[in-house]
Formats: sequence, structure tokens, C-alpha cells
Amino acid sequence: MYSFKNDYSEGAHPRILNALLETNFEQTEGYGEDYYTLTAIELLKQKIGRNDIDIHLLSGGTQTNLTAIAAFLRPHEAAISANTGHILVHETGAIEATGHKIISIDVSDGKLNCSHLQTALDSHTDEHMVKPKLVYISNPTEIGTIYSKDELEQISLFCRENQLFLFMDGARLGSALSSAENDLELSNLAKLVDAFYIGGTKNGALLGEALVICCDPLKEDFRFHMKQKGALLAKGRLLGIQFVELFRDNLYFDLAKHSNVMAGLLRNEISKAGFRFLVNSPSNQLFPIFPNGLIKELQKNYSFIIWSKLDADNSAVRLVTSWATKEEAVLAFIKDMKNALSLETR
Amino acid sequence: MYSFKNDYSEGAHPRILNALLETNFEQTEGYGEDYYTLTAIELLKQKIGRNDIDIHLLSGGTQTNLTAIAAFLRPHEAAISANTGHILVHETGAIEATGHKIISIDVSDGKLNCSHLQTALDSHTDEHMVKPKLVYISNPTEIGTIYSKDELEQISLFCRENQLFLFMDGARLGSALSSAENDLELSNLAKLVDAFYIGGTKNGALLGEALVICCDPLKEDFRFHMKQKGALLAKGRLLGIQFVELFRDNLYFDLAKHSNVMAGLLRNEISKAGFRFLVNSPSNQLFPIFPNGLIKELQKNYSFIIWSKLDADNSAVRLVTSWATKEEAVLAFIKDMKNALSLETR
Amino acid sequence: MYSFKNDYSEGAHPRILNALLETNFEQTEGYGEDYYTLTAIELLKQKIGRNDIDIHLLSGGTQTNLTAIAAFLRPHEAAISANTGHILVHETGAIEATGHKIISIDVSDGKLNCSHLQTALDSHTDEHMVKPKLVYISNPTEIGTIYSKDELEQISLFCRENQLFLFMDGARLGSALSSAENDLELSNLAKLVDAFYIGGTKNGALLGEALVICCDPLKEDFRFHMKQKGALLAKGRLLGIQFVELFRDNLYFDLAKHSNVMAGLLRNEISKAGFRFLVNSPSNQLFPIFPNGLIKELQKNYSFIIWSKLDADNSAVRLVTSWATKEEAVLAFIKDMKNALSLETR
Amino acid sequence: MYSFKNDYSEGAHPRILNALLETNFEQTEGYGEDYYTLTAIELLKQKIGRNDIDIHLLSGGTQTNLTAIAAFLRPHEAAISANTGHILVHETGAIEATGHKIISIDVSDGKLNCSHLQTALDSHTDEHMVKPKLVYISNPTEIGTIYSKDELEQISLFCRENQLFLFMDGARLGSALSSAENDLELSNLAKLVDAFYIGGTKNGALLGEALVICCDPLKEDFRFHMKQKGALLAKGRLLGIQFVELFRDNLYFDLAKHSNVMAGLLRNEISKAGFRFLVNSPSNQLFPIFPNGLIKELQKNYSFIIWSKLDADNSAVRLVTSWATKEEAVLAFIKDMKNALSLETR
Repeated sequence: MYSFKNDYSEGAHPRILNALLETNFEQTEGYGEDYYTLTAIELLKQKIGRNDIDIHLLSGGTQTNLTAIAAFLRPHEAAISANTGHILVHETGAIEATGHKIISIDVSDGKLNCSHLQTALDSHTDEHMVKPKLVYISNPTEIGTIYSKDELEQISLFCRENQLFLFMDGARLGSALSSAENDLELSNLAKLVDAFYIGGTKNGALLGEALVICCDPLKEDFRFHMKQKGALLAKGRLLGIQFVELFRDNLYFDLAKHSNVMAGLLRNEISKAGFRFLVNSPSNQLFPIFPNGLIKELQKNYSFIIWSKLDADNSAVRLVTSWATKEEAVLAFIKDMKNALSLETR
Repeated sequence: MYSFKNDYSEGAHPRILNALLETNFEQTEGYGEDYYTLTAIELLKQKIGRNDIDIHLLSGGTQTNLTAIAAFLRPHEAAISANTGHILVHETGAIEATGHKIISIDVSDGKLNCSHLQTALDSHTDEHMVKPKLVYISNPTEIGTIYSKDELEQISLFCRENQLFLFMDGARLGSALSSAENDLELSNLAKLVDAFYIGGTKNGALLGEALVICCDPLKEDFRFHMKQKGALLAKGRLLGIQFVELFRDNLYFDLAKHSNVMAGLLRNEISKAGFRFLVNSPSNQLFPIFPNGLIKELQKNYSFIIWSKLDADNSAVRLVTSWATKEEAVLAFIKDMKNALSLETR
Repeated sequence: MYSFKNDYSEGAHPRILNALLETNFEQTEGYGEDYYTLTAIELLKQKIGRNDIDIHLLSGGTQTNLTAIAAFLRPHEAAISANTGHILVHETGAIEATGHKIISIDVSDGKLNCSHLQTALDSHTDEHMVKPKLVYISNPTEIGTIYSKDELEQISLFCRENQLFLFMDGARLGSALSSAENDLELSNLAKLVDAFYIGGTKNGALLGEALVICCDPLKEDFRFHMKQKGALLAKGRLLGIQFVELFRDNLYFDLAKHSNVMAGLLRNEISKAGFRFLVNSPSNQLFPIFPNGLIKELQKNYSFIIWSKLDADNSAVRLVTSWATKEEAVLAFIKDMKNALSLETR
Repeated sequence: MYSFKNDYSEGAHPRILNALLETNFEQTEGYGEDYYTLTAIELLKQKIGRNDIDIHLLSGGTQTNLTAIAAFLRPHEAAISANTGHILVHETGAIEATGHKIISIDVSDGKLNCSHLQTALDSHTDEHMVKPKLVYISNPTEIGTIYSKDELEQISLFCRENQLFLFMDGARLGSALSSAENDLELSNLAKLVDAFYIGGTKNGALLGEALVICCDPLKEDFRFHMKQKGALLAKGRLLGIQFVELFRDNLYFDLAKHSNVMAGLLRNEISKAGFRFLVNSPSNQLFPIFPNGLIKELQKNYSFIIWSKLDADNSAVRLVTSWATKEEAVLAFIKDMKNALSLETR
């Protein structure tokens, strides 16, 4: 049984484990003030190409989202999110638990645009309603689509003109930036958004997200917020060492590219076999629409999520590749798919 | 420079890193539903000697405290804590951020007793005040003192008679239960308190606290609370593997004992040298009172915290040992202390 | 200029002001423990026909909603509301500010039914999502529609079968229960819902809502929650005296009936004049669709809200009547409408 | 039985009730945008002598405290309060329920000074602790003491030098400013504190507190916060009319003065009779220390609170006078006290 259920099934890239081993008995400062965390932050600043940003290492996506959004907003201010947004659907009300409403916008492709944002502003007119203040986007989105540079520039401009903070959830940012269709770079992000994070958990780390705060007013006292939300690890070195390893050369993007290449293999062969996709997702998540019989057959050897039922006979499934996905597993999946199809047609 | 600043200066016990390496490419379920987490929970239940308890693995002490206390209390209910309590002083208002007041009780030795609790109840009489509902104790306390079985039994009885939940912060529980003065066992705890946790971060793990919920009404839906507070790691295996390693034999307590033995060495020699302690702490934290000159001398080779100034000439310092403390470092410290003293007396 | 903007434009029914005057110098207990509040509660219990309910007097609708819902839910639990729900749209995130998500259900007539609720349950399946726990309905709804006994019984049964609390916002309950189309009584409500409130502010009082808690587990410590949310008035007599006056005979329902009769007059004449309504609202809010020219003409002498633009030439407006609406104002409005129409047709 | 239990036993000053009657059928805007509220705000600005302040009318003290403090602070920031502070003791954790810790300072006379504040700052040094940001004082304090101009100037200067907001709870502000020992005026307050409120509930109104925000950054979007906390009354006129009546001439201070004069009568005669007071309180609350026998005797005809037991034979009681306290009741109390004493001595 091979799993395409998600991109956090395996441990960490071996270089990371080796680095943990090698540094294991060095005594370091606690709570993210250690040499490795400071080095990781320096490396990230270099990759991003800016020094006037603040970077903090946190453990996971939900933790990063809730800590950041709670820190950035005043009590009456709300976040705007696509209806598929992770904070809206899959975080057990973590943002609301910090006191903030999320304004949901119905979209078909997981992405927000200026027209959506204008609608949200237009429908929030006075003090009887929350005040929209932060725009939450994910890149890639929860359904694998990505933002182009042009799209992001438009949103960014809109946000600045309307005093909205722009926050990008980058739990799978590596996959977005390594996508064949991508034209964004880390350095663009730091100019276009007010804060974003670079996800490690889903791209080779045991755990870890690097939050980048680009906007000065959002920087103040951020470590207080981390501590208050339980997000300051005593052994901060654990995060620091991992990000050093991921960013001291190009490992982070190499891993993301591998993930995308594996997804590309699947995408091509599934397309060739005549199947459509729920959405065009040029990153490491695919949503092919399969006949239920084929799904049953594939489930014998592969685990994956059934995303949605389309009609009585067909369903969309989610296939996720990762830095650790083995090419032979992908090839086997393709072969099994083809075999199942040829059996069916006989 | 050797550090006695805290017990989270090093990485993890080598067996833990090896276990991470060996299992690294196994595909597991996410979010704490993996084989290793389930196994760790089984092992812990065996060690505790009860099956009717719920166990959850979280990342750190503050996260565990805030997730548990927010889950256990209704909005108007408050926790009672000694004035030295970690939740009261060193967690940036994490509990208050979830909406709950902490009632502070002045104590001299870090420990609560029934008389303290009665005082708290007596001064909270009606709906104009919060309702005391949960008693927060740490074992060992933040100043290294430990609860005896008799003391804990009295508090436990009081709590049951007064419908109070009893919650024990066990960030350093290994050190308490391995103390020469201790007469408590894990199995006692599960009977006497409603919830407690077994700290891994400060006793050999990279990170990780095992929260044990003994009281039925507190168990319901706890994973929802974890997810909401950002405490459900995608790669839950990271916590599971570590606790398996710590509890598949006696490693956890062996490490704690080492820590206490190292503290004992320091305690004896400091006593013999004629110094007193701020408090009698039979665990891995010591608070000797040193002349400022001696402190300055020791700071040349050792890092530690100056806890409080007692008078113009003397201060209490905090020395912390851990599972990783090297005996040669302790012996060197003792030697340097003696040398400094003999120099002084000349 | 006469206002049909809302039902809180005037002060209070004269009997209420007289009662305040007459009792003004009696010394009473504070914080809702006075003779008048206790009497009001007794009168309400008689009208409702049950003794095993708890009743509390609060100041306004948002305050009642947020105090009750925050008291009733645990941190990970959510409310379900129609997309037009007051708590969802017009309370500045008051519920979210207490930590709870509201699950929005798209409806056309302001009303929830079992199919909506089933959808909400079906889409919240595990601990990565909030747990739907409380169903929020308003009667009448925010767009003036009302629940029939049959509809409410079905929802009630569904809630009980699915461990959901059913909470009814009754800011305009008088108008609903006095509607010609209504077949519900106060005594039915106490059996079918877990908590509801009887709005005074919009039906003759200066301020005041009587919250009725029917479900035992929701009763505990409710005054603590009121105090914590700033909802316990020092001079609780102010609320008590008003509810005594409204319920010592049939004043409350007489006032509501007047309001509905005035709305009926408007509804009939607007219908006769050939206009349709956005929704069939048998209570004190009407949403006629008028040509923009007519609206402009009417705005010369009447104030009301333009609810929504339907097309380039027509808009829905909101007309609200109240206990204080003067029949001559209604007749004048009708006459002016007719005049405007006849001018137009010439 | 005459009550000296508190200053909210009666209704409202007759002029207020008359004003409510006279304006009862005028149609006004809702939610504090009515003519009377706007007029009240203008009158208050004139009395305070400044135009560049924002004023909002709220219902009660706890509501005002929680709405203001939650609006003013970011999540990790805390309030500093004397240990007797109303927010700390008697508001059921209302401030903590909005997420903020209150740092308690032990004082003997209910008042904070710069030395207290420095201590609080000194003990909060890094991101593991909350950040002290707002100083909460009451004038008069909860035990009737008042701040002198000099004392307030010192605190104000300290706060500005240390970036602390200074917030004054003025639930009984009339009594403080009308005290014989007072040298502060409304105009001083607006210069020395960042926000304060002028309590109506305890000085002649049915309910109502006028919050004055003097500091620009604290003004933004305050009505959003009011709505979110349920503090925006639909019939805002109720508050507006009352404050117009209290401040269109000198009624507010006349009422407060009466209250103080009544307290003065009691104070003098109690002193003359040889009794001491728990604290020197030159406002409308007195804390005489009486023998228990005398207390028992007085309780036959008067209700008041027993504040604290001093020894086996003596207790401090609290006597509160108000705008409505009748001189004959005060004289009767004095006479009864003397009679009881003469009986005793025989």
C-alpha cells in the first residue's frame, strides 16, 4: 500500500536528520535565540533578498495562521478568505477562537481577486458589521492552484489602496514557486504581501514554518504573541537546524521541484488516459475525476482521499506527491491505472 | 563555557534520533493517528497502570497548559495557582488569552495546600467574581520543590469535595518522580489528579509532552481543542516515536535520575562549602545563595541565571542539570567553586 | 417627516414610564435581585406556563445573543445560522469575539429547516473542523418571515436527535406570535427550544430582553456569564419594572398586535396598488418593491431603508411598524403613495 | 429599613424621568446617533473644555471597562491595577474574558503610585511575560479614597514616559470631584489621562456611563467595539436624554455634592462618637469600625454591608450615601447609633 494521501507521510530529508545528529550535544540558547535559528533567519533573508524583514520559525500551519492573524488584527477586524481557505474550513475555528470573524467569499478555483475583495468591502459598511482588514490567501491554494505574479500584484495594489493587510499561507509554498506555471519569486512576495510563510513541514522538514513579516507595523512584539499561543519551542534549535539545512543551498526548492515532477508524471498520464481534472492544479496536488470502479481498483494498492462525488459513477480524488514520493511508486500507480482500464474495456 | 541555565540546552537522547532515522521513510498517518503515537499511548497506559485514561501528545508546556485549561473550563471559571506558577508568570498571559483568570496564591515554597485553596474559595462568593474551578500545580514546582504523596492526597481530596479539577503541570515530572525524596508514582497520579502531563522536552526529547486525562468529563472532544490551538502536528509521528523510545523501557526515568544525581553532586558540595539555598529543592533545579564575587568568578566558565538579589553582597542563582549534563562539567564547576573560595580566603 | 425605519424610534409605552415614576424612590436590591425583577420573572413563568425554567433580564439583542451563546458552547463548538442571521451579519462579530464560529447556511426566506441542518452536520465530520452544536433561529426572521408550529417542531426534533441546542432570537417575538399567520404560543416555545428570548426593546420597552432558558444544563451559573459580559445592570429594577408592566396583563401582545395591524394596513394597500414584495412577511417588517421614482417621492415625507436594488428601475424598501406607529401616519403614507402613483400615470 | 448598602438603590433623579416622559414620542435615530446623545456629547465637551475628545455613552461600569480595555490593548498587553481594583475583583473576570491579564499590585489605600508602576515594569522584562500597557485606576477608588491633582500628575507623567495608557474608572467620579478634599477638575482629567468615564448610574441616572477618550490612537473605530460587546443600545436616546439632563446645568455635581454632604454628616458624628475608620475616605463611601454589638443593633433598621472582620469584637462596615439619600435617614441613623451607645454604657 503506497500513500498519495498527503505530503506529510514521511519523516524528514536525511540531511536534516544528519544535521540534528551532528549538532545534538551542542548547548544552545532556548526559545529561538540559538545560533541555528539566527543563522536560518540570515539565510532566509538572503534568499528573499531583503534585510528589513522579520522572520520567525513556528511549528505548523494552523499555529502560524492563528498566531499571526491574532497578532495583526484588532478585536473588530476580520479576515477575508476564499470559501476553500484552510483557516475557514480545516482549522477547527482557530481564528474565531482568537476572536475574529472570517468573511467567506465563494470562488471556484480557490483564488481571490480584486472583484471579490471589493464585494467584501462593499457589504461591510458600518459599525454593525466587522471591519474587513486582512486578506488571507494560500499559494498554492487548498486545491492546488497558484497565483501568477500579475494576479498577486493586482491584489497587492488593491490591499494597499484599501488599507488591507495581505497575508499568504505558504504551507506548500515550495510547490507553488517551483511549479512550471509559476512566475513568482521569494523576492516578489516580500514586496507584494505584508506577511507570508515558507512551509517546511510539507517540504522535507519534520515540522516548521518560517513566517516572514514584511510590513513594519506588524513586526512589533511578535515573539510575545508566539509565546502566548504556545508557539515558542523551548528547543528552538529544532526549527533552526532544519531551516539552515533547507536553505543553506537549494535543497528546499530541489525537494519542491521533485514533488512537482512526480505530480507532473501523474498528471500527464492521467490526462493521456482520457481523464479530466476537477481543477487545473499545477502544483503537487491533483484532483483527477475517475470512474468509481477505477477508484476501487486503485484503492487496493494506494491510499488517497476521495475529494467529492460528481455523479453516480464518477468521483474526484486527491493525489498528493511530496519531496519523498518515489518515482517507482508513481510509475506503478500509472501502470496499475492503465491495467485497470484495459481490463475494463475488455 | 558550560551551561547550567536550563534543561533544554541540548538536542535529544541519541536513541531518539536513531529511532527517527530508522523509521524516517515509513509512511504514516498524520495528526497523531500514526502507529507510533498509538504505540506510545499504549506504553504510557501500561506504565501508568490504567486503560481508562486518554493520552495526547503535544509539543510544549505552554501549549499543553493553555489547550488543556481552555478545554476544561467554562468562560466564568478560573484556575488557582501558586504565585510562582508557570502559567501565572512565564506564559505571556496564555491562559488569560483563552479567557480565564488565574487566581494567584502567595506561597513561599511554590506549593499549594488545602488551606490556600480554602482561602481562594472563601474569597469567591458570588457571581460578581470568577468561579474557582481548576487547581494548577506543578511537580516539581517552578522552584524545584516536590509534592509528597500525602500532600497530594490531601489536595486531591479537597478538590473532589469542592468540585475542583486538579491539574498537574509535569514539564519536569521525571525529575520529581526520580527524586530521592519522592514517594509518588505515575499510578498514584492517575488516581489523585484529573489531568497531568509527562514532560519530554526537558527530559531527553526534542519536544513533546504527554497529556494524561484521567477524569471522564474532561476527555470529550479533546482533539478538537488541540487542533483549534495549533497543537496537532501534521507529522504526529515525531512525538509518537520519541515517547515510544522514552517509555518502551525505563529510559525516561533513567534520564531523570541522571539529572537528579548531577544536581545532588552540586547540592552536596555547595552545602559542604557552607552555602545555603533559597529553598530546599530535591529535584534538578538548585538555588544556592552565593556571594556576588563568587558568582562573577563562576560566570567566567559557566552560564546560569541570577535568580534574585538577597542583599548587597549575596544573590541566589539557579543551577539546572539535565539528562545531558556531563559529570565532568559538574566536577569542574565544584572544583572552580572551591578554588575561587580558597583564593578569596587567602 | 415620519419614520418607518425601525421599531425603536420612540421611547416606551406610557404605562412603563409611569411605573418607573411611581416606584422611583423605593429602595431596591441591585443587580436583578430586586422585587420587580423577581415579580417579572414570576409573571413570565405564568404566561409561559412552566416553573422549571430560568429567566434573566438583559438589555439588548446583541448582548443577549453573545452572553447566551458564549455561555452555552464549549470552545470548539459552533452555531449554525441562516445567512441572514443577525448574529452573522449585524453584530460586528460579537459571537466570534467570544471565540465561536458561526456556520452560515444560504436560505432564501430567512428560515432554517432540517435539510439545512443535516447539510451542516454532514460537512463537519472530524476534529479539523468546528463541531456544530447550537442552532440559531430568529422568529420573526430578519426579513420578517415567521416559523409555523410544524416547522419548529421538526427543527426541534432534529436538534434533539442530533444533540444540538436550539436557540431562538426573539427580538421581535411579540410580532411573530401576534401575526395572523402564527400558530405558536409561548408555551410551545418553552417545549420546543432550549432557550429563547422575549424582546422588549422593539415592543414598548426602553430596553430589555427576557431570556428564557428551558434546558437544565444551560441554566447553571448563568448570572456569572451575565456579569462577565457586562450584562448585569446595577439598577436591575429598570428591566424588572418594564417587564412587570408588559406582562402583568396583555400589554405586550396588545402592542405587538397593533404593530402588526399597522403593517397589515400597509401590506394590503401596497398590494392593491399592484406592487409585489421581496418576501412574504406576515409580521411588522415589509419589503415592498417600488419603482425608484416612487421611492424618491415617498422619501420627501417618510424615512425608511432602501433594502436592495432589484434592477435599474426598482428597489425593495423596508417599512417597519411598531407599537408606537400612528394610524394616521400609515394612512398618510398610503395616501401619498396613491397620489404619487396617480401623478405618474397622468 | 433604610438602605446604606449602595448608591444604586433608587431610580433616577425626577428631572431625568420627566425628560424621558416629555420626549417619549419623538422619533429619533437609533444606536446613539440621536439628537439627545449628540447634544449630551456636546454638553460634556463644553464641561470638560475640549473639543478634540471622543465621547461615548455606555450602560454600566463593567461594560465600559471591558469594552474600553479590550479596544485599547493588543493581545499580549496587560492592565495594571491595585489589588482592590473593581476589574480585578468584582467583574467576574470580564477583562480576562477579552484575553487580557491584569497585573495586581498590593496597596493599602486603593491607590496606585509611580513606585507601584515601576515595580510592575521591572518584573515584566521579556516576551515570556505579558507586556504592561494600561494603568487602571478608579477615582474614587473602591474604598472611597481619591487622587489629588499632584498624585495624578505624577502617574500621568510616568505613564507617558513609559508608553502606558492611563485609564480612569469614574463610576463614582462625581463624588470624587465633589469631595471637600478634591483639587481635580474635569478639564484636568482630559489632560492627564488617556481615557476616563463619568458615571451616571451611581449619580442620578437609571443607567449610563460617559466614556471620554482623550488620546487619539484610542479613538479609532470605538463604536465597532461597543457594538461587538453588546454596548450599543438600540434606543440610545435613553442614555442621551439622561446625560443632557445631568449636564445641561450643574445637576450632576449638585447630586454628587449632596451625596458627599450626607456622607460627611455620618463621618463627623461617627468620629465624634469615638470610632475610627478603616481608611480615610473623603467621598460617599465610609468604612467605620464598629463593635459587633452596635452593628447588630443598627441592622435592625438599616441595611449595609459588613466589609471585614477586624478582631473578635469589631468589624468594619460600609456605609454608602447617594444623590437620593434622605437627610432624615442619616439623622435617624446617627440618633440610633447614639442611643445604642448610651444604652450600652449604662
